[in-house]
Amino acid sequence: MINVLITTVPFGANNNFPLELLETAGVNYLINPLNRKLTEVELINMVSDVDIIIAGTEPITEKVMENAQKLKMISRVGIGLDSVDLMAAEKRGITVCYTPNAPSPAVAELTIGLLINLLRSVQKSNYDIHSGEWNRYFGKRIAETTIGLIGLGRIGSRVLNRLAVFGTPRLLVNDILPNPELDHNFKLEWVDKATIYKEADVISLHVPLTKATNNMITGKELQLMKSDAVVINTSRGGIINEEDLYNVMKSGHLSGAAIDVFKEEPYNGNLSKIDRCILTAHMGSMSIDCRTRMEIEATEEVVKFINNKPLKNIVPSEEYDVQRQGL
Amino acid sequence: MINVLITTVPFGANNNFPLELLETAGVNYLINPLNRKLTEVELINMVSDVDIIIAGTEPITEKVMENAQKLKMISRVGIGLDSVDLMAAEKRGITVCYTPNAPSPAVAELTIGLLINLLRSVQKSNYDIHSGEWNRYFGKRIAETTIGLIGLGRIGSRVLNRLAVFGTPRLLVNDILPNPELDHNFKLEWVDKATIYKEADVISLHVPLTKATNNMITGKELQLMKSDAVVINTSRGGIINEEDLYNVMKSGHLSGAAIDVFKEEPYNGNLSKIDRCILTAHMGSMSIDCRTRMEIEATEEVVKFINNKPLKNIVPSEEYDVQRQGL
Repeated sequence: MINVLITTVPFGANNNFPLELLETAGVNYLINPLNRKLTEVELINMVSDVDIIIAGTEPITEKVMENAQKLKMISRVGIGLDSVDLMAAEKRGITVCYTPNAPSPAVAELTIGLLINLLRSVQKSNYDIHSGEWNRYFGKRIAETTIGLIGLGRIGSRVLNRLAVFGTPRLLVNDILPNPELDHNFKLEWVDKATIYKEADVISLHVPLTKATNNMITGKELQLMKSDAVVINTSRGGIINEEDLYNVMKSGHLSGAAIDVFKEEPYNGNLSKIDRCILTAHMGSMSIDCRTRMEIEATEEVVKFINNKPLKNIVPSEEYDVQRQGL
Repeated sequence: MINVLITTVPFGANNNFPLELLETAGVNYLINPLNRKLTEVELINMVSDVDIIIAGTEPITEKVMENAQKLKMISRVGIGLDSVDLMAAEKRGITVCYTPNAPSPAVAELTIGLLINLLRSVQKSNYDIHSGEWNRYFGKRIAETTIGLIGLGRIGSRVLNRLAVFGTPRLLVNDILPNPELDHNFKLEWVDKATIYKEADVISLHVPLTKATNNMITGKELQLMKSDAVVINTSRGGIINEEDLYNVMKSGHLSGAAIDVFKEEPYNGNLSKIDRCILTAHMGSMSIDCRTRMEIEATEEVVKFINNKPLKNIVPSEEYDVQRQGL
């Protein structure tokens, strides 16, 4: 009997089909009984007899794999691979696949919502009225701002596309490689990150978490930003240093921030003391349709793997290079 | 000397140009010293010597006009005319003009922000984390919903236009007259309001406040809505009955609401007890650029009026008909 551990939760909550797929395949499956993101130690204690992990963002480290002698496959429900030690998996011949396309529309849409929220002080006014106060805040329309996007992959390019209808006089963008197709559709200024920090009114991050992006934005970078800039992170925790963001915002710098992803989740750090920092619980991909598609895609890969059929979304070699070279 | 009373506040706060226009015109002006929306009685006590009012949304009733024997012009900073008794103004030969185009882009953009906010439970998650809790809420993308728009004038049509980029499988719309131009660009279902109440997941109002729209949505209409529908009102207070909305939401019906406009402002009613009701302080048009344009346009009309030049935005006869016939 093949043992499948489903660590990501919720799973199969809105649509039972992924669980039906596993039942039809005749595997034995267990959904994470703690119903929250697992720590490395918790995971180690669960994997000794597991053949396949359907994984969230919990740390699947070399130590975890050492304690999972039967492990043959990791199927990530999502796009980020920072949580999986790809070198350790490669060494052991463990197959890793993911769902790179499914989450993008939901993350891009949440990003636009957070952006308008910040520019118009929705959360401040909402907080005021619920506390019995009435203050009318002036805001900015998107068309009045300089937008800075770091990372123009699947999600960043969708954000760009959805912003365009609101009018965007100046778009500063940064990525490892310029994308000529985007230049065809938008008037982009490809600049270095420091230019974005200094000149953008809205800064939104759409990069993976790698050695190169870990702690990419610290106090130093935050201080480069305009005093009334807003920052949005719907990509990965760890890219913005949370304590630095707290200290900088506490001092009065930045007019707002929206953070959906945290270094440790559940998050219970200092940013919750900052009213003008919108905090959401890693919900970028949590639209019913996107989440369902992610769960189905990840499970279909598992079923194919069991039946020795070719996989559709094996993690490509570039992702291994990123971890190998610390890009 | 011509006396101008500016009742709308803030005025000239972000851009001094409207005040410079008045100074150049040589008039004597006073900005509302109470720095909040005036009541009818307060207004009566201020207008005895006033020639021109640059008005917000305070009630300029027949009684106010009776006490303003010198009043010759009302220049509304904004689009809604529910606060001005047009019949009483007509009878006295008082000219009324407004700024119908300036606020629309800002209101439409805030509406989109509130809509995504509601569909993704941003305010709930934000509240949770700021209170030390972590709950991941499933949401819906715009593309997963049936959108219902009531009113497709300057603002409603802009909302439609901005929604399209997110994908909208089903658009239910209602207005007094169908607009063939919109049919050319969007696949619209023109339906009665009851169909929108029953079938839409998102209901957004973009109608003026008139006798016909006053109390348009009471407990009865709210109960017709899906239990997980969301309602947005960025148009005018009074169109949704606030106490009915409170009672219906308190009972657990509706997954959320976003209310930017209230029957009495500042608002301090029961809706502030409903966490999933986003409340903002009439900030639809409060983007710096739109507000500045509104103030400048309204002031330019005043200067033209003083100099006997033709006005650009005299309130058209249709608006008088609306009040005369209670449409």
